Amino acid sequence: MGGDFGPEVVVKGAIEAAQAKGISLLLVGREEEIHQELARHKTDEISVEVVNASQVVGMTDKPSDVLRKKKDSSVHVACRLVKEGRAHGMISAGNSGATLACGMFVLGRIKGVERPALATILPTEKSPLVFLDVGGNVDCKPYHLVQFGVMAEVLAKDLLGISHPKIGLLSIGEEEGKGNILAKEAYKLFKLSSMNFVGNAEGRDLFAGNFDVIVCDGFVGNAVLKVSEGVAKSISNILKAEIRKSFLFRLGCLLALPAFKRLAKRLDYAEYGGAHLLGLNGTAIVCHGASNVRAIRIAIEKAVEFVTSKANDDLVRGLKANKELGLFGKRPKT
Amino acid sequence: MGGDFGPEVVVKGAIEAAQAKGISLLLVGREEEIHQELARHKTDEISVEVVNASQVVGMTDKPSDVLRKKKDSSVHVACRLVKEGRAHGMISAGNSGATLACGMFVLGRIKGVERPALATILPTEKSPLVFLDVGGNVDCKPYHLVQFGVMAEVLAKDLLGISHPKIGLLSIGEEEGKGNILAKEAYKLFKLSSMNFVGNAEGRDLFAGNFDVIVCDGFVGNAVLKVSEGVAKSISNILKAEIRKSFLFRLGCLLALPAFKRLAKRLDYAEYGGAHLLGLNGTAIVCHGASNVRAIRIAIEKAVEFVTSKANDDLVRGLKANKELGLFGKRPKT
Repeated sequence: MGGDFGPEVVVKGAIEAAQAKGISLLLVGREEEIHQELARHKTDEISVEVVNASQVVGMTDKPSDVLRKKKDSSVHVACRLVKEGRAHGMISAGNSGATLACGMFVLGRIKGVERPALATILPTEKSPLVFLDVGGNVDCKPYHLVQFGVMAEVLAKDLLGISHPKIGLLSIGEEEGKGNILAKEAYKLFKLSSMNFVGNAEGRDLFAGNFDVIVCDGFVGNAVLKVSEGVAKSISNILKAEIRKSFLFRLGCLLALPAFKRLAKRLDYAEYGGAHLLGLNGTAIVCHGASNVRAIRIAIEKAVEFVTSKANDDLVRGLKANKELGLFGKRPKT
Repeated sequence: MGGDFGPEVVVKGAIEAAQAKGISLLLVGREEEIHQELARHKTDEISVEVVNASQVVGMTDKPSDVLRKKKDSSVHVACRLVKEGRAHGMISAGNSGATLACGMFVLGRIKGVERPALATILPTEKSPLVFLDVGGNVDCKPYHLVQFGVMAEVLAKDLLGISHPKIGLLSIGEEEGKGNILAKEAYKLFKLSSMNFVGNAEGRDLFAGNFDVIVCDGFVGNAVLKVSEGVAKSISNILKAEIRKSFLFRLGCLLALPAFKRLAKRLDYAEYGGAHLLGLNGTAIVCHGASNVRAIRIAIEKAVEFVTSKANDDLVRGLKANKELGLFGKRPKT
């Protein structure tokens, strides 16, 4: 039911994913609206079931209210379907705070995971990058960042097929000892972990593609992500204004259109689907509210890959391998 | 002596600034090298004095070591010239940590300023933006951010000529109550201040041009700035690769060259000179190590504007106006 474009886009994206991957769909929400959307498509060759959820979560609803008062909302019901084993995973393009909360309290967390993290896969100049946390956890302890790193490492291995991912910690200088207190303390723990930790990454490394995973807290991650979207948008806006000004430039851009399109595709976040919610007993993906059909389709495909690669088992193994850092089981008092 | 290109670029930039603005130059550093550079230019119509400083600060020198052991380095001597009233202001393209330290301990801080801030002026889609802190202070208290805001407001007024600058606090949501603990606490103080505080700014606002000042701590500011440089660089790299691929695109870009040049000029940081060190008893500007001649010239011109507009007096007035928040004089215990 969620997302800026409602069931129209979500249903279409889901059908495309089912056609491409041969998966079975459970579409959760107000059944009448969903059936209306389904009627507009050819669905006789795919498996679709509609699960009714009478309540709708708005973008301003508080996550805590959704948890308590909207138990029959699509996000809540979808999480229950995963919890009960009726679904292998869930995706939502709705209120991301609510998805996070339902994921955390309905699905539950892996033992020792205090804060599930939101990990996004970003395009870079070279291979894609796992970047986290992008908004789940705004005030973190060093321990959290290390846990994020271990979980992101699994994503890079299982979904991007990188056997030995290069893990970096976002800071403001390459050398150990650069950064704020959080980054400096986290650095020490990263060195002690099982990860292939290659040191601090700087802002400029994000899109250069020299790392496979970059870790930071959710405040920095969210700010950085929105700034980078903003820069790309501003460059595009200024170029568009220039196009209006000059005939020659218009002609030039027309000739260069295929190249611009390839550039846009390479920078398109939709190409990598939504953000993975890591650290839960189950598979959950949070899509951008403005997701288009393609983004929904790809997010579902990523959820399928997460499930089929048994990423969550690897994630538990990864955390267990760092048990002495307190990443699995009962956390040591700090 | 500093900067990636040494005296060659700095001397040339300084001469150009002197020619353009009719100011007197004190060039501080190893006198032989500076005289060699000067000999390559026509300087009979400008006022230039060379002040010898025998020591050179490297990029790996620790700021504390520069303070104690390199008192005859160009950055140290230049700060003393300002302190003694022989110079109105100083700029350096060398080790920025050393410049910060010398500025702080040689020039001294304005009463009540615990942390001088590094403020940069960024191009946006609309008018330029004062953005701070960009690396001086990585672990901040709410009080620091408010002080940064008040100081940046003066820069927007005196250097950008904006009579009633719109001040924003960088966070991860527009509404009050969004953000990490630091941002949420700072928000409350911003509301109580004399500033025209318009609320939280998000990452995407940075280059959209809807704010005149955006404040954050130095860790976030530095990360954000480097990411935005990185995004622009990556887009340019990908475009260049595309140019090599296609003849039509090459032709298109050739036709569009003037527009691309205008775009590059609008996004060029050099256009706004270096970063202002705010909160000192004196005028100091820290230039990017990679500054070219134009960046040095503009940085000097900005220093001149800072001095002639009596920005430091306005800055003291601004801090005094927020004395009850502890921004001036003796700070209250917190």
